[in-house]
Amino acid sequence: MERSLIQAIAAALPAGGTRIVRGVGDDAAVVRAGGPLCVTSVDAIVEGVHFRLDDGSSSPADVGWRALAGALSDLAAMGAKPGEAYIALGVSHDVGEEQALELMHGALELAGVTGTVLAGGDVVKAPVLTACVTVVGWADSEGELVGRDGAQVGDLVGVTGRLGGRPSRPIPRLNEGRALARAGAHAMIDLSDGLATDARHIGESSQVCLQVELEKLPLDAGVPSSEQAATVGEDYELCFCIAPAERTRVEDALRTINAPTVSAPPTAEVTWIGRVLAGAPGVSLLDASGNEQRLEGFEHRW
Amino acid sequence: MERSLIQAIAAALPAGGTRIVRGVGDDAAVVRAGGPLCVTSVDAIVEGVHFRLDDGSSSPADVGWRALAGALSDLAAMGAKPGEAYIALGVSHDVGEEQALELMHGALELAGVTGTVLAGGDVVKAPVLTACVTVVGWADSEGELVGRDGAQVGDLVGVTGRLGGRPSRPIPRLNEGRALARAGAHAMIDLSDGLATDARHIGESSQVCLQVELEKLPLDAGVPSSEQAATVGEDYELCFCIAPAERTRVEDALRTINAPTVSAPPTAEVTWIGRVLAGAPGVSLLDASGNEQRLEGFEHRW
Repeated sequence: MERSLIQAIAAALPAGGTRIVRGVGDDAAVVRAGGPLCVTSVDAIVEGVHFRLDDGSSSPADVGWRALAGALSDLAAMGAKPGEAYIALGVSHDVGEEQALELMHGALELAGVTGTVLAGGDVVKAPVLTACVTVVGWADSEGELVGRDGAQVGDLVGVTGRLGGRPSRPIPRLNEGRALARAGAHAMIDLSDGLATDARHIGESSQVCLQVELEKLPLDAGVPSSEQAATVGEDYELCFCIAPAERTRVEDALRTINAPTVSAPPTAEVTWIGRVLAGAPGVSLLDASGNEQRLEGFEHRW
Repeated sequence: MERSLIQAIAAALPAGGTRIVRGVGDDAAVVRAGGPLCVTSVDAIVEGVHFRLDDGSSSPADVGWRALAGALSDLAAMGAKPGEAYIALGVSHDVGEEQALELMHGALELAGVTGTVLAGGDVVKAPVLTACVTVVGWADSEGELVGRDGAQVGDLVGVTGRLGGRPSRPIPRLNEGRALARAGAHAMIDLSDGLATDARHIGESSQVCLQVELEKLPLDAGVPSSEQAATVGEDYELCFCIAPAERTRVEDALRTINAPTVSAPPTAEVTWIGRVLAGAPGVSLLDASGNEQRLEGFEHRW
């Protein structure tokens, strides 16, 4: 979706008042609920736009899994504990109900793996199969959470896992996100639109430049180039910025996490891919010769 | 949407654990957030299914208003305080962005009227204009909230406002819902699918029979029959059950509410339309001759 619409919507929103700790512009909204903080994110996926069922690349259950994974990944990027999920299904008249139910079963599989409770939703008719997933996560205090806006000049830039593979059943890095928050990450985002775009979001929000060396990107099996790994998106790995002094602490923390082993995903080790500089806010992607590359991922969220 | 799919989805859900106070089967889910309770509902509306833009009956801003109204109405039916809203927009390629932005402005108007904060969302491409609205409301304790399952034999059945008019900018009865909860309502639901269907939901959830006299239904201007008022839906008025001893307390409470006066909606007075009996769980709709009528509203939520 074009950025102009997203920016126009964001500009139309009034200030949120004192209950809103973080509003539009981060991975999830954070609302003060009295004591704990309520962390909420919404993700919609649409047949023919985000997935196809007619080419055999995904089953309806895969789609349900991915819809929930995309929303939970936003909670992971905040360092929040997963809580509840709500799924609004748009079901087309002809293909229909069996697919919708399979989709729900795929979502329920991931809900079980991650300890998320599916607590409600809506079912409506729609031209194509559509799923809108709202997830609510929790944190005991604001200090437990990590936004996009805290990266500091001198930080290291790291990513979890391997990029570019676009797995049909991605594992949202919830445990890794909380571990990185505890380890002192200054800024964090999940790679839904591709590193080129998502790292830029951190840079722009933090008013710093994330300099990334493309040859250091950890490529998933079968991914032919760093350029592809930086732009494909839907990895749902985490990109984060942290002080160099915490490097060992991060590596130790991620090594001890028992990542969910459904479909035997790669262990979410950490790879250090760059550093945070002063300069034009955004991202600077350097190839092996030190030349800056202009790459864009797919972008549709606000 | 057919009930079989909704029932199949509900049957697939595992038990929610101790944090879930109310899950699928009420107007909204209720989750324990430490101290306060988090009350969440999701409503999706789709062009060509729930609204049309090509016949001049609704503007995009009206659609945005109604999308948010439908979700907030679920909070009203629980007796919850409105909190935050999250809107996932599906925007079609050709008609596009201007309409989507107008839709957001309509939602923001109602957000302002009701004190709801729009805190986030998503924007994706879709075949037709689609809005999925998640609203989060709050309550300090479970005793503040009213479900569908508490109606008792001997209760009076009441409704707010006037039915059947299907206003283009309905006002969710948030203040009325909280007043009715405070007055001791045993069960409550908002009229999204039509009284015939929604009152049945209370009867089935409470394992009682709501006997409604159709001639007592308060018809909105221009509505030709009680049958139409009972089946049209999207009134977003409240139907509730309460002990006869609280009748005056309810009438006094609703008279003192200053309902929002955007588009000068009718004051949400109360009309007593029936009573709660033992017998086959559901609803019994009696015409002026005392004969039972079989009527069904439009049903699509779970």
